[in-house]
Parts: sequence; structure tokens; C-alpha cells
Amino acid sequence: MSSFLVTGASRGFGLALVRQLVSLPATDVSTVFAATRGPSAEIDELAKNSSGRVVAVKLDVANEASAKQAATEVEAKLEGRGLDVLINNAGICQYAPDGVKSMDNLTESFNINVLGVHWVTRAFLPLLQKGNLKKVANISTSLASITQARAAHYLPGPAYKISKAAMNALTMQYALDHEKEGFSFIALCPGWLKTDLGGGDMADLTPEEGAKASLDIIFTPGQKYNGQMPKVFVKGWENAKGPNVYDGTNVPW
Amino acid sequence: MSSFLVTGASRGFGLALVRQLVSLPATDVSTVFAATRGPSAEIDELAKNSSGRVVAVKLDVANEASAKQAATEVEAKLEGRGLDVLINNAGICQYAPDGVKSMDNLTESFNINVLGVHWVTRAFLPLLQKGNLKKVANISTSLASITQARAAHYLPGPAYKISKAAMNALTMQYALDHEKEGFSFIALCPGWLKTDLGGGDMADLTPEEGAKASLDIIFTPGQKYNGQMPKVFVKGWENAKGPNVYDGTNVPW
Ligand SMILES: NC(=O)c1ccc[n+]([C@@H]2O[C@H](COP(=O)([O-])OP(=O)(O)OC[C@H]3O[C@@H](n4cnc5c(N)ncnc54)[C@H](OP(=O)(O)O)[C@@H]3O)[C@@H](O)[C@H]2O)c1
Ligand SMILES: NC(=O)c1ccc[n+]([C@@H]2O[C@H](COP(=O)([O-])OP(=O)(O)OC[C@H]3O[C@@H](n4cnc5c(N)ncnc54)[C@H](OP(=O)(O)O)[C@@H]3O)[C@@H](O)[C@H]2O)c1
Repeated sequence: MSSFLVTGASRGFGLALVRQLVSLPATDVSTVFAATRGPSAEIDELAKNSSGRVVAVKLDVANEASAKQAATEVEAKLEGRGLDVLINNAGICQYAPDGVKSMDNLTESFNINVLGVHWVTRAFLPLLQKGNLKKVANISTSLASITQARAAHYLPGPAYKISKAAMNALTMQYALDHEKEGFSFIALCPGWLKTDLGGGDMADLTPEEGAKASLDIIFTPGQKYNGQMPKVFVKGWENAKGPNVYDGTNVPW
Repeated sequence: MSSFLVTGASRGFGLALVRQLVSLPATDVSTVFAATRGPSAEIDELAKNSSGRVVAVKLDVANEASAKQAATEVEAKLEGRGLDVLINNAGICQYAPDGVKSMDNLTESFNINVLGVHWVTRAFLPLLQKGNLKKVANISTSLASITQARAAHYLPGPAYKISKAAMNALTMQYALDHEKEGFSFIALCPGWLKTDLGGGDMADLTPEEGAKASLDIIFTPGQKYNGQMPKVFVKGWENAKGPNVYDGTNVPW
């Protein structure tokens, strides 16, 4: 009987997370708040056919007022109960074709990938404190690893890498501040996914595979992953070579 | 006969770097461009008494137009020569007394500590490419280490830690992009210094000690430190316990 909120639920990994969650028994997943910044036909459709288990919420993560408004709406819907799990999934991946010196989009990447996570998290924190599971998964990427940056250098997305590294640092601050209350703040790496952002069919995993494996981590009881950056475990990929191994181990910061 | 530019030269560590550089023989250090965002009596005084070796430059790092203007001025002063070393020292440390959830200054910290470094670096990159040493030192801190975040949790400066972690990630992107041209981009940890930002007398090292030890790293020939986060080596502190050891080793990201 847990409640979830997923940001960036209009498409890609966020939509797959909502679908996966609502496919689980209602005794496990009572309500999924599917947050999108614009109208979403898919989410409206899911909401219509879910007997109230999927609730559409308007939320532009880059706008703190929008995050507060969404929290107020969700609070009303929860009728005194807390929110159990927050998945900060909304994100953008911006490129700089001529290297970091040509990067003109770091501010926008910060606004959505870092400040967005901060605004949403603090708006929902009071509801999460009343929740039972106290899990916050911030969707990260091994491209954010400064330690492994050399291996990812071929990919010309400095604003993505830098902003996600900052998001990791933010995740760690929340993890340390709220550990004693029983929270797990996780920088979760879902694998390379066949989504718009992931570049489509070239990628390794379907959004559904990524969603299933990510929920395995999120559903892990206790605080094992608090302040950590686990990569998903996917059967068949656990012995792969290089960056495409999905063996459930932590990515180094 | 090398030329240097130091940002944030009005006080603290930046001023100590300028003083230390100009105390070296003119055969080693020809010109020190001392960049400040406002008027600085100390820098004007140093400029007056340095036979032209200290040159005051106006530079607000949080303003890209100011960075470009400063680069144009410095280019004119260099009369066709390149700039050898850039020290991105300007920075701010902001607090959030009630933990990360009370953090309202992350945007400002990003603007100065991350975007500021980016704007200054790319404005001066053409001059650095013409220089002989090709060193860029971005002044970092072990508080930026996500790996060591737990040990630094007592210090309530989440925006400082997060923005400096992002600056580290930015440093790594420049390091990888420009390695083949012979550059060293270094995230340099100068130790805990007795400055306004460092909290004054409680700190470990005088700004002069930090400056001397930092220049030892910057003057190291070759590219040993490219894409790394070295901490200074200071005699007498190399066997200290805990975070206050200054043994010249790298801080983990
Ligand atoms: N795909 C991968 O391989 C991969 C790997 C590692 C991590 N990730 C992470 O997984 C997350 C989802 O990625 P994805 O592959 O599903 O990307 P995607 O297909 O491009 O979808 C991005 C989602 O984020 C939403 N979004 C963007 N800005 C927003 C804002 N300001 N407010 C609210 N929503 C916003 C988008 O909404 P609109 O439809 O309105 O644009 C969309 O729903 C991202 O954080 C990404 O960094 C992806
Ligand atoms: N002190 C330490 O223990 C310590 C440890 C590790 C790293 N660091 C790093 O060392 C650097 C210098 O620190 P500090 O201790 O010398 O600090 P400080 O005494 O507070 O001096 C900060 C300097 O940065 C300048 N500055 C701030 N914003 C600026 C902007 N937008 N444009 C241009 N200049 C700007 C200030 O200029 P104004 O005079 O105009 O304000 C001042 O010159 C910082 O990057 C800091 O993070 C310090």
C-alpha cells in the first residue's frame, strides 16, 4: 500500500516507471502520482483505466512554485497519509559539439537536473517524512562519474555530465541530513535505455527493463543504498565488459 | 619568464598568490595579472611597486562579458605573447544553517564557482594556447569530495560543496578535451587557510603557506596533475591525522 511520485512521466523512462508500478498489485502500490510539465495523452489514458491508482499531476521541476503547487495538490489527494517514494526522473541531456569550451547550456542543465531535483525534493519532504518507505531516487548516470570521466569522453555532453555530478553531490547532502530519520536518498543509474534521451535503439535496455531493475533497488528494504550510486542489476548483462555491465554494483563518484 | 593571471586577487588566498608570485625572480615570473571585481588598494599598491610585473585587471567572474573584456585587455598587454598560467581562484562559500533543505543560494554558488570558472577559462583559452606552460588551476577543496562527504557533514555549506563538486567535474571535462595540446587542468586543494572564507585563525595554514605549496604543484613540469585533484604538500602537516593532512596526495572525487 505504498504511494509513489514520478517526475518527467510523459515519456521514456518516467512513463515506463509509471507503467511498471501500476502493473504491480494494488496491495503493494496504491497510488502513482505521474507528474508531467505539459499535457500527456499516455498518462491521461493510464489515469482513466487505473481505477484511480494513477493520478496525473502538473509539475515543471525547473520552477519552484510549480513544485510547491504540485505538493499541495498531492497532499490533498493523500488525505492525511504520507508519500512513500519520490523518483526524481525528469532530466535533460544537452550537447556541446565542439567540446566543453563551446558549452552554452550549463545553466539550463543545472536548472532542470540539479535545482529541479532540489525544488521537488524539498517541496515533497514533509509528505515523505510522513510516509512509510522514505525513499528518494534521483535518476543519475555513470556519465556523471568524475572518476570514470575518461571512459565517457567520447560522448560530447559536458553539461549533462557536470550537472549530473552536481546532482550526485546534492543527493549526498540530502542523504547525510536525513539518514537518521530513516531516509534513503539514492543516485540511481538505470542503465543505457532506449529512449529519446538515450538515443533510441542503439541503447542497451528497454525502458521497461530499466524500470524493473531500478524498482528492485528502490524496493530494497532498509537504508542500504542511502548516499550511494548503485547501477541496476540486469540478468544477462551482469558479466558484460566495459561501461555496459549492469551488475548492481556502485559507480564510483 | 612566465605570465600568470589570478582571479579573486583582492584578498585572502588570491592576494597571497599574487604576493608570492611577484616575490619570485622576474626571470621566472614576468607578469602577474591580478584580477579583481572591484577596486583593490592592495593590488594597486603592489602594481605601483612592481616595475610593471603586477598588472591590475577588472574581472567579475560571474559575468561572461567581463571575462571577455578582461581577456581583450590582457591580450593587448601581452603584445603577441601567450598567457602561461591561469589560476581560477575567485569563489564564495555559502551556508544553509538548517541543512540542505533550507538551501536557497545554490544558483549564486553555481554562478560564481562553476559558471565563473567556465567563462574565465574559455575567454582566456586562446591566450593560454599560445602560452608555454599551459596550466589552469581551479581552486577546489576537499569539501567538494562526494566520496569524503560524510567526514565533512558537520560543516553546513551544501551549496559550497555541491558547486565545487560541479567545478571538479568541469575541470575534468577541460582536462580531457585539451590534454593532447599539452594542458594541465588541475582541481587544486590549497588546504584550510586563514582567510575570511576559511574562518580566520581557526584554520590550519596561512594564505602564504597555502600559496607556496600550491605553486609547487602548479610549477611541476609536464602534465602529471592533469584531470586530478591534488592536495598541497606542507612540511610538518604531511603526517597529520584526518582531513588536515597535507601530504600532496590526490583527494578522491
Ligand atoms: N536514457 C538513458 O540512457 C538514461 C541513462 C541514465 C540516466 N537517464 C536519466 O533518466 C531520466 C529520464 O531520461 P529519459 O531517457 O526517459 O529521457 P527522455 O525520454 O528525454 O524524457 C525526459 C523526461 O523528462 C521530462 N522533463 C524534462 N524537463 C522537465 C521539466 N523541467 N519538468 C518536468 N519534466 C521535465 C520530459 O518531459 P517532456 O515530455 O515535457 O519534455 C520527459 O518526460 C533522466 O534524468 C536521464 O538523465 C537516462
Ligand atoms: N580558505 C580556505 O580554507 C579554502 C580552502 C579550500 C579552497 N578555498 C578556495 O580558495 C579560493 C579563495 O578563497 P579565500 O579563502 O581566499 O576566500 P576569500 O578570502 O573570501 O576571498 C574570495 C575572493 O574571491 C573574490 N570573488 C568572489 N566572487 C567574485 C566574483 N564574482 N568575481 C571576482 N572575484 C570574486 C573575492 O573578491 P571581493 O573581495 O570582491 O569579494 C575575493 O577576492 C576560493 O575558491 C575558495 O573556495 C579556500
